[in-house]
Amino acid sequence: MPYRSPVSEFTFLLDKVVGFSAVQGTERFAEATPDTVQAVLTEAGKLCDEVMGPLQRNGDLDPAALENGVVRTSDGFAGGYEAIAEGGWVAIAADPEHGGMGLPLTVATAVNEMMAGACLSLQLNPLLTQGQIEALEHHGDDAMKALYLPKLISGEWSGTMNLTEPQAGSDVGALTCKAVDNGDGTFAVTGQKIYISWGDADFVSNVCHLVLARLPDAPAGTRGISLFMVPKYIPDADGNLGPANSLRVVSLEHKMGLHGSPTCVMSFEGATGWMIGAPGSGMKAMFTMMNNARLGVGGQGVGAAEGAYQHALAYANERVQGKSPERTIIGHADVRRMLATMKAEILAARSIALDCAVSLDMGRATGDADWQARAAFLTPIAKAFGTDVGCAVSEMGVQVHGGMGFIEETGAAQYYRDVRVTAIYEGTNGIQAMDMVGRKLMDGGEAAFRLLDEIEAEAEAAKATLPDLAEAVWEAAETLRETAEWLLTQDMANRFGTAVPFLRAFARVLGGHYHLRAAIAEPEGAHGRLARFYITRLLPEHSGLLAHVRSGDAGLMEITPDDLAA
Amino acid sequence: MPYRSPVSEFTFLLDKVVGFSAVQGTERFAEATPDTVQAVLTEAGKLCDEVMGPLQRNGDLDPAALENGVVRTSDGFAGGYEAIAEGGWVAIAADPEHGGMGLPLTVATAVNEMMAGACLSLQLNPLLTQGQIEALEHHGDDAMKALYLPKLISGEWSGTMNLTEPQAGSDVGALTCKAVDNGDGTFAVTGQKIYISWGDADFVSNVCHLVLARLPDAPAGTRGISLFMVPKYIPDADGNLGPANSLRVVSLEHKMGLHGSPTCVMSFEGATGWMIGAPGSGMKAMFTMMNNARLGVGGQGVGAAEGAYQHALAYANERVQGKSPERTIIGHADVRRMLATMKAEILAARSIALDCAVSLDMGRATGDADWQARAAFLTPIAKAFGTDVGCAVSEMGVQVHGGMGFIEETGAAQYYRDVRVTAIYEGTNGIQAMDMVGRKLMDGGEAAFRLLDEIEAEAEAAKATLPDLAEAVWEAAETLRETAEWLLTQDMANRFGTAVPFLRAFARVLGGHYHLRAAIAEPEGAHGRLARFYITRLLPEHSGLLAHVRSGDAGLMEITPDDLAA
Repeated sequence: MPYRSPVSEFTFLLDKVVGFSAVQGTERFAEATPDTVQAVLTEAGKLCDEVMGPLQRNGDLDPAALENGVVRTSDGFAGGYEAIAEGGWVAIAADPEHGGMGLPLTVATAVNEMMAGACLSLQLNPLLTQGQIEALEHHGDDAMKALYLPKLISGEWSGTMNLTEPQAGSDVGALTCKAVDNGDGTFAVTGQKIYISWGDADFVSNVCHLVLARLPDAPAGTRGISLFMVPKYIPDADGNLGPANSLRVVSLEHKMGLHGSPTCVMSFEGATGWMIGAPGSGMKAMFTMMNNARLGVGGQGVGAAEGAYQHALAYANERVQGKSPERTIIGHADVRRMLATMKAEILAARSIALDCAVSLDMGRATGDADWQARAAFLTPIAKAFGTDVGCAVSEMGVQVHGGMGFIEETGAAQYYRDVRVTAIYEGTNGIQAMDMVGRKLMDGGEAAFRLLDEIEAEAEAAKATLPDLAEAVWEAAETLRETAEWLLTQDMANRFGTAVPFLRAFARVLGGHYHLRAAIAEPEGAHGRLARFYITRLLPEHSGLLAHVRSGDAGLMEITPDDLAA
Repeated sequence: MPYRSPVSEFTFLLDKVVGFSAVQGTERFAEATPDTVQAVLTEAGKLCDEVMGPLQRNGDLDPAALENGVVRTSDGFAGGYEAIAEGGWVAIAADPEHGGMGLPLTVATAVNEMMAGACLSLQLNPLLTQGQIEALEHHGDDAMKALYLPKLISGEWSGTMNLTEPQAGSDVGALTCKAVDNGDGTFAVTGQKIYISWGDADFVSNVCHLVLARLPDAPAGTRGISLFMVPKYIPDADGNLGPANSLRVVSLEHKMGLHGSPTCVMSFEGATGWMIGAPGSGMKAMFTMMNNARLGVGGQGVGAAEGAYQHALAYANERVQGKSPERTIIGHADVRRMLATMKAEILAARSIALDCAVSLDMGRATGDADWQARAAFLTPIAKAFGTDVGCAVSEMGVQVHGGMGFIEETGAAQYYRDVRVTAIYEGTNGIQAMDMVGRKLMDGGEAAFRLLDEIEAEAEAAKATLPDLAEAVWEAAETLRETAEWLLTQDMANRFGTAVPFLRAFARVLGGHYHLRAAIAEPEGAHGRLARFYITRLLPEHSGLLAHVRSGDAGLMEITPDDLAA
């Protein structure tokens, strides 16, 4: 059951649902004309369908392995990566000054999602490189940009992020990796990092590690963290590779899924590094990288959901069982319900990711603080909801397959196992929700309420043509607004106790908003029918979630560790 | 992090929540005194903690394998099984006439759940034998009972169910396995069966297969199905093993989890079988077995949830991260929320399973049709909700572990992978929901409304002492009642389209009912606090689910296969 990139669906969403024309109307992205975007999506779709999709199972059946200290990648991945790099797909949004295409992030988001749907484990490699490019574009000095960016953008070299240490996971500030000034413009970086995705690969000539570490006199906590570029091979100023650096892959993790992506334990043993930005500014640079990456990981969730959905749909269309009119199980009401749920959830999560990307593009193109705030507010939602949908849809994909879903040969189980990590890495979904109710409401909820104003105004206008759907979306937005207003009166303890249901409720309502737009665009078509399904059946979930939120942390922390052990 | 059987929790639920004293008050179960039950649970708990729990990882790390046509079981499983059999734990509810203990099914349900929590893959073996014992007790003739039951009950032999064929999964009536009368009281059984759990094992001297097959002149569909006992080795009348039968394990499935349990493709090649019951009555006998097994599988879900919960709780108590007061992540509000959710869901699902078992025991002991109808109504809920909770709690268990959750060494991922099949086998959870809104409402909803009457009456009475919790449960039950009344006016197409959310909503409300009882018993204690958490935060989910239900299939089947492919 081969993956087929949903190019026409992206075109529909860009045109009718997430207002991409605003991006195209800016001077910065004037070259991203509808024709260009269509051509880019179509070409990327071909790469995904013809090259990456066929590699999906290889990642699982022939996992990346550490052989003689070097990562040997899955069968076919080297060729797949070469096609990605040669086509210029590693970083299509990168700055043209260093070889990028300068396309909007919105287009990159769509392409990344398609690549993730086709082969998640391989796609993670260029996604990480994109994050590194972003960090260098913002925080690197000119020499570093000139040296590294062309190689990263072309895909000749790849990039990694080295944050986590055994004792410092979600609490990045606890990291202890050391960097000592060599006095020659370089630093000696020493320490162990874990969970380093694509910490090595045999299909690139160099692997560039961005490493968070502390100078000897650095203060404790996040203010004492600096960022270093630590390449596997030390290049000269022209990018010619020199001696191997003092770093190595200690081991690969034995994971539940995503076996095509080597998750490395890295050891830096006085490795030569170059500081990026000022001492103590490492977290700031890392956040640049992580913001991009969070949206990218949300898109991984949506992509995996799309792959799992296509897989389940194909099975439901083929599998004969029982006496339904069509004889295949797609004629069974409960299977139809599952498939419609999967498709409706994908539209919701995909639109959130695209809207977030549109907001980022608009923020960059116009410098408008409102767009930037909107992007910042949508980022944790795009990450958490996108990956939750990835998990839930792949879970339903297994169920549609019945007994075959539990058998590895069908591939349904692989989606379920692979995507699970996306709800964890790049900040767990709990961390995303805390970011949303904490930092992202520090504007007094301005960005949130602007979104709700938009949702309600459009629903109000839609009442003339789609009265029941519009009314349901308006009502849900209003309940959400009341809860958000209440939440803003609460202290952080109260907010954190119910951050996850609040984020999910917000995503639910946003999903209603995008589905309503889709229904307005196509009231008698497939999108109109799917919107009715979402708004009447899935959107009502918000009420239970918001009831949960309004409990705050009352009664939560009173459940003691002893109670939990009872 | 070793498994610890929750014996005192079972004692609490039996005493205070599911009314087990009614069972103890019957003549049939008069010997199941509180002291006896306590002793049984304590002893079973020891077996689970000391013998079975330590085998859990072995099933994953050393999967069952087919070697020279015979299943070689995981390291330690043979010794574990021996301990189960020697302790008499294979079938504690079986008839004393053939060596059983004759204990209530309620006690067996508790013991089975503990065994499942300790080592799911090994526990499945005796669970299947229990189903076979049940089928033989009801449908076997005296000779067959005398020959097979003592061996099965002692654990010397094990039992399997052979239903599924490649083209006949949920649609059992489509099966084509043949049985031809040999004219000597035996039949020659020929065909291939798939998904045969524990189709072979090296720790029993015989494997007894119950096989569904058709006589040559049988009508099509389920009415033409007969049931046959087809042992691996043909015993003489005294139970001495004779020649090997013409059957074999063709292969083992390569599954996502539950690797300790061999899932066999079985081939019967003119194998000698004995018919059980009359020709064409196979489905009836199989349903006897499946009803028991459905409750048992629901308990597997709860057991896996308990195991995953204990695992996550231990990790949260140890893992230091961030600046929370206790320094360990259990001090983080979002982690506390996850753990409380897990524990609260387990109480709800466990109580449903135990209440179902109490109803079965009362039905058997008294012959009262109301108890029997209550048991029949609760069975699909116990299966579907129990296994959904198994999946959801193990999913949260992974999340509590953060990045470690995706690494196999912690064991969190194994719970997540292993339990997934329980939502599929023994009738998918969609099939359970259709059974509930179809066959189980054919009484005009009598059993359902009696349950709702009970819930509302108790909530009404509790308003004096726990006004807010009681009011919330009463309101939820009333909304559910209105939806159930509406559902009864709908045709099957409408019911099937939203059967799954209806089942889940019913389980949610039942969970509120049991939590309220727990709170009444222990208003100032851990159970009271947990009940407040469940009723204020999780119970509100029912409203969104019931809104979904009231959509019926309107707009569902209008979403065409073409729409889904768009």
